Amino acid sequence: MQNFDYMTPTRLIFGKGVISNLPAVMKPLGKKILLTYGGGSIKKIGLYDKVKELLAGFEIYELPGIQPNPKYDPSVLAGVKICKEKGIDAILAVGGGSVLDCTKAIAAGAKYDGDPWDIITGKAPTLSAIPIVDILTLSATGSEYDCGGVISRTETNDKIGYVDPHLFPVCSILDPTYTFSVSKKQTAAGCADAMNHIMEQYFVADSTLLNDGFCEAGLKSLMANAKKCLENPEDYTARAEMMFACTLGCNGIYALGNSHSGWPCHAIEHALSAYYDITHGEGLAIITPRWMKHILNDKTVDRFVKYGVNVFGIDPKQDKYEIANQAIEATYKFFESIGIPMHLKDVGIDDSRIGEMAHHIAVNEGLENAFVPLLEADLVKILTESL
Amino acid sequence: MQNFDYMTPTRLIFGKGVISNLPAVMKPLGKKILLTYGGGSIKKIGLYDKVKELLAGFEIYELPGIQPNPKYDPSVLAGVKICKEKGIDAILAVGGGSVLDCTKAIAAGAKYDGDPWDIITGKAPTLSAIPIVDILTLSATGSEYDCGGVISRTETNDKIGYVDPHLFPVCSILDPTYTFSVSKKQTAAGCADAMNHIMEQYFVADSTLLNDGFCEAGLKSLMANAKKCLENPEDYTARAEMMFACTLGCNGIYALGNSHSGWPCHAIEHALSAYYDITHGEGLAIITPRWMKHILNDKTVDRFVKYGVNVFGIDPKQDKYEIANQAIEATYKFFESIGIPMHLKDVGIDDSRIGEMAHHIAVNEGLENAFVPLLEADLVKILTESL
Repeated sequence: MQNFDYMTPTRLIFGKGVISNLPAVMKPLGKKILLTYGGGSIKKIGLYDKVKELLAGFEIYELPGIQPNPKYDPSVLAGVKICKEKGIDAILAVGGGSVLDCTKAIAAGAKYDGDPWDIITGKAPTLSAIPIVDILTLSATGSEYDCGGVISRTETNDKIGYVDPHLFPVCSILDPTYTFSVSKKQTAAGCADAMNHIMEQYFVADSTLLNDGFCEAGLKSLMANAKKCLENPEDYTARAEMMFACTLGCNGIYALGNSHSGWPCHAIEHALSAYYDITHGEGLAIITPRWMKHILNDKTVDRFVKYGVNVFGIDPKQDKYEIANQAIEATYKFFESIGIPMHLKDVGIDDSRIGEMAHHIAVNEGLENAFVPLLEADLVKILTESL
Repeated sequence: MQNFDYMTPTRLIFGKGVISNLPAVMKPLGKKILLTYGGGSIKKIGLYDKVKELLAGFEIYELPGIQPNPKYDPSVLAGVKICKEKGIDAILAVGGGSVLDCTKAIAAGAKYDGDPWDIITGKAPTLSAIPIVDILTLSATGSEYDCGGVISRTETNDKIGYVDPHLFPVCSILDPTYTFSVSKKQTAAGCADAMNHIMEQYFVADSTLLNDGFCEAGLKSLMANAKKCLENPEDYTARAEMMFACTLGCNGIYALGNSHSGWPCHAIEHALSAYYDITHGEGLAIITPRWMKHILNDKTVDRFVKYGVNVFGIDPKQDKYEIANQAIEATYKFFESIGIPMHLKDVGIDDSRIGEMAHHIAVNEGLENAFVPLLEADLVKILTESL
C-alpha cells in the first residue's frame, strides 16, 4: 500500500429537489455571480429559468456556449475577462464536465495576472481561485468532486489536464432528474468515461483488497445502471446510482493507496479528441479493449483474471489467459451493447495522423512510466488496432 | 436512493513516516498546542518523544490519562479548563478513538461559555471548536475521519454520541507502523468495531449496488487483514489496509444514499459499556450475531442472503433461510476466531441489569425507527441471548 495525502473539501448535496439549497449555498460567496453553461439544454429542461428565479437577489453575468472538450480560446479567455471586468465573487457552472472544467480554468485564471495558459500548463503556480459551485446535468467526468479539468487548445492540438487543490468546487448540487433528458449517446459515453476512470485506478501494480472491491463495485454499478438508464431514461434510481458512481470517479476515493497507472487510456484519448474533437467517452471505450489486449502478459494476467471473475462473473476454473481474454472481450461487448461506436473510423478518424498522434502522446504524456510502459511504437500499435 | 448532504474536509496523510509533515500541519493553526493522549503506550513506542522533538518550536501543554470510553469527568472538563486558561490554539490528539473523541468534546467545550454537557447532548448548539489534528495509534473507530465522538458520564450511565460538523479534524496523520504494537485483544476489538460500523450501514431498507459493493469490500478487507495482523503484528500491508478500512468506517462514504438503520448494535452496546465499561468492539461483536438472529425474517432474509454470498462466499444455491443462518453463524465464528470473548458473561456482565439497560436503550436510542424496529422486549431478548 502506497503513502497518500488526500483531501476533498467539496460539499455534495444530492437528490431530487436539492436545488432549493442554491440560494443558501451562494449567499456566503458574494453577490456577483458568473453563470457558465453550454448549449441550450439547460434552457430546454427549465433549469436555466429555475436558477435565475432562485438567484433573483444576485447580480448575474453569463458565459454561455462552452463546448465539449472546452476550449481555451474563446471560452476560458472570455470567462476570465468577465470575472476581471465585473469583479465576480463566485462562479456557478450549470452543465456537464466540460462546463465545469472550463469554469475551473476561468476561476483560477481570473486570479492570475498573466496569461492563464501559464497556470493551466503549470508554468506558474495556482495561488487562488474564485469559489465555484456547480449544478450537474451529465453523469460522466467526476469533475464535480475533484480538483482537475481538461482544457483544449485547438491551434496546438493540446488537451491539457489541469489539477490543483484550489479548483475543488465549494459545493456540487447533484439532482439525478436533470440527467433524465441526456441522450442515449451521451449516457453511454458518460458510462464509458466513468468506467475508464475506475479502470485507470484498478489496473496498477500495487492495490488493496478494499480498493479492488471498491473499483469492482463501481464498474458493476455503472454497467448495470447505464443499461437501465438507456432502457428507461427516467428511471430515477438508475440515474441516481449512475450519477454518484461517476461523481467518485476522479477524486481518488476508489483507490487511495494504490500505485499510479499513469492513466494510459486517458493519455491516448486526449490526443484523439485534441486532434479530432471526438466525444471523450467514446474515444476511451474504443481505446480501452485494444490497450488491454496490448498490455496482457505474464505480469498483468492475474489482474485481468481478477477483473474478469469479479466484474463479469467469468468462470474462474479456466486457464488464466482464457479468462483474461474473455474479460477483454466482455469489456468490448459491453461498450458495444450500450451503443458506442467501437472503431476509430466510426468516429471519423482514419490512419493518416496516427504517427503524429503517437509521437505527441509519447513526448507529452510520460507513458514510459505507466503500469505497463508504452513507447511510441506501442501507441502506434494500439491506435492502429483501434481503427 | 435517498437524498444526502455530505462533506468531509479532513485531510488524510497516510503511510510510513508521514509524521514528518506534523510541523507544517500545525504551524498555520497557532503556537499554543494542547497535546492529549491516553496511557503510556505512546511513550513506549517512542511517539511521544518524536512529537515533542518535531514540535520543539511550539508551546505545548498536556492532558494525559484519557481512558477508553472517555469520561466527561475528569477528562473533558480538565481539557476544557486548560484550553480556556492557556488560550490554546490547536489540539493534537495522539492515540486511538477514545483520545480523539474526548479531544473533540474538549475542542468544542473550550469555545462554549456554559457547561460543555449542554453541547454534547445537543441542548445548546455547537458554534465553533478549536482546530484538531490527530496522530492515530489504533485502527478502529474511524473518529479520525468523521465529526463525531462518544462521551461517557459515569454517574448517570450515559454514553452519548456527539456529532457536529465543527468536530472534523483538520488533519489526521495515519502511520500504520504506530499500530504494530497494538495487542491482539485491541486489534480484534478494533476490527469488530469497524466491521459493525459497516454492517450498521449495510443492513438497511434501501441501498445501492455501489454501496453494497463498498460495504462488502470493507468487510472482506477487514476480516482478511485483521487475521494477518494477528498472525504477524508487524505486517505493514495488513496493518495499513486495516487502518484505512477503519478510517472510512463512520464518515458515510461506505453508503451515501442508503437509508438509515438507526445503528442498533451501537445503541445496544453503548448501554453495555456505559453500565460496565467493557471494550466497545467486544461488546459489538457479542451483540451483532444475536441481533442478526433476532431480526431475521421474511422482510430481511434477502439482505442476509446477499451478505452471506458476497462476504462469506456461501453457496447461493440453497434455501434463503439456510444461507442467512449460515451467514450469521459465519459472523459469530469469525469474531470467535480472532479471539473475541463471545458471551456477555465472559466480559463480566450477568443478567442482573438487563431489564434496566433495555429500558435505558428503549427510552434513549429511538430504535423503534430502526431498520427492524426494536422495542424494550426485543432488547431484553437480544441481551439475554448474548449472555
